[in-house]
Amino acid sequence: MDMRPVITAFKASPDRGRGLARDMAVRWALEEIGLDYDVQLLTFEELKASAHRALQPFGQIPTFQADGVALFESGAIVLHIAEQGPGLLPVEAAARARAIAWMFAALSTVEPPIVERSMAILLEREEPWFTARQALLDRRVRGRLAELSARLGDREWLEGDFSAGDLMMVAVLRRLKGADLLEGEPRLDAYVARGEARPAFQRAFAAQFAVFEASEGVAP
Amino acid sequence: MDMRPVITAFKASPDRGRGLARDMAVRWALEEIGLDYDVQLLTFEELKASAHRALQPFGQIPTFQADGVALFESGAIVLHIAEQGPGLLPVEAAARARAIAWMFAALSTVEPPIVERSMAILLEREEPWFTARQALLDRRVRGRLAELSARLGDREWLEGDFSAGDLMMVAVLRRLKGADLLEGEPRLDAYVARGEARPAFQRAFAAQFAVFEASEGVAP
Repeated sequence: MDMRPVITAFKASPDRGRGLARDMAVRWALEEIGLDYDVQLLTFEELKASAHRALQPFGQIPTFQADGVALFESGAIVLHIAEQGPGLLPVEAAARARAIAWMFAALSTVEPPIVERSMAILLEREEPWFTARQALLDRRVRGRLAELSARLGDREWLEGDFSAGDLMMVAVLRRLKGADLLEGEPRLDAYVARGEARPAFQRAFAAQFAVFEASEGVAP
Repeated sequence: MDMRPVITAFKASPDRGRGLARDMAVRWALEEIGLDYDVQLLTFEELKASAHRALQPFGQIPTFQADGVALFESGAIVLHIAEQGPGLLPVEAAARARAIAWMFAALSTVEPPIVERSMAILLEREEPWFTARQALLDRRVRGRLAELSARLGDREWLEGDFSAGDLMMVAVLRRLKGADLLEGEPRLDAYVARGEARPAFQRAFAAQFAVFEASEGVAP
């Protein structure tokens, strides 16, 4: 890439600097590839304004712009970044396709029950059905985690070397932080910790945490 | 591709031949590219057996095997097929990346509230909260549809020519058949009809319907 990419992120992220917003995977991918980038921070009002909707039809973050490429959807952005340099996608065609399959598995199979559970906590806590239903949602998440853990087994990463598939899967599993569900699957817990230990993850985490600090005006 | 691809599908699809199972998008992509394929039909018991789990860690359909490539996740399979021939991905890099962004948008942004709504109907119909909660789920789906419709506007397809992004988006929107929600967005309703009118869609639909007919042992 010739031009320095520009991504968008929350000016005041609701996750309070825990790196759970969707810019985190994009920052991490950029760090893995070794690409410097700029960040444009948006308020919730700016997210829903037509200028941003032209880039992101659903009024969300992140977006990505570089070299005449304008993208939305963190999965698509991470895949695009992964295609720009070595480190996130195997060169061999069959292995490359499998790394991409794990990206889709993270976003389309593992994440939906996790997000559904978080959304219920966020939006349905006052509803009369909340407690009874939460048990059902926990069970669905646990089912997916058990299947993923069985597949991971004693491997370090999902397939051979670390890939964009692992990056996206770890980013998705991190949404369970504090939920006391990941802890029930020690192999997945250790897998997430391996992802978080990567220097590129740590640089990305620090960058998004700095945004939170600035928005709070407090020291860490 | 040298070898004829083999995909997996339900032996007895719960959608009763309406083409709403996840093999439909894969069949459609293969037809758009003009690739013949074989289908291995699996019972629910076979889906959960270890032989299939080796191919599909979550015990679902579809899978795809050809030329030493073994894949799961309909999004990853459609993307892989789209890369094999002209017709589903633009050649120009920026346009190609945007078509892929729409694939992720379909599966990661538009589909989750649609599936959550269907799952509630399937699994929570007897729960005391069902009716009250369904109104909330309908509202979430309507919100996404309104945003997508605003973006589509009077375009024929999401970006220029028909792409894998449209294929996946139409496949996702078709899950609302019979839900009386798509009808509230005439532009999306017409968009889905344009997708369904494509000869490749019709061949794919007929192929999956033939499986349903055989499983029922009845004439259409």
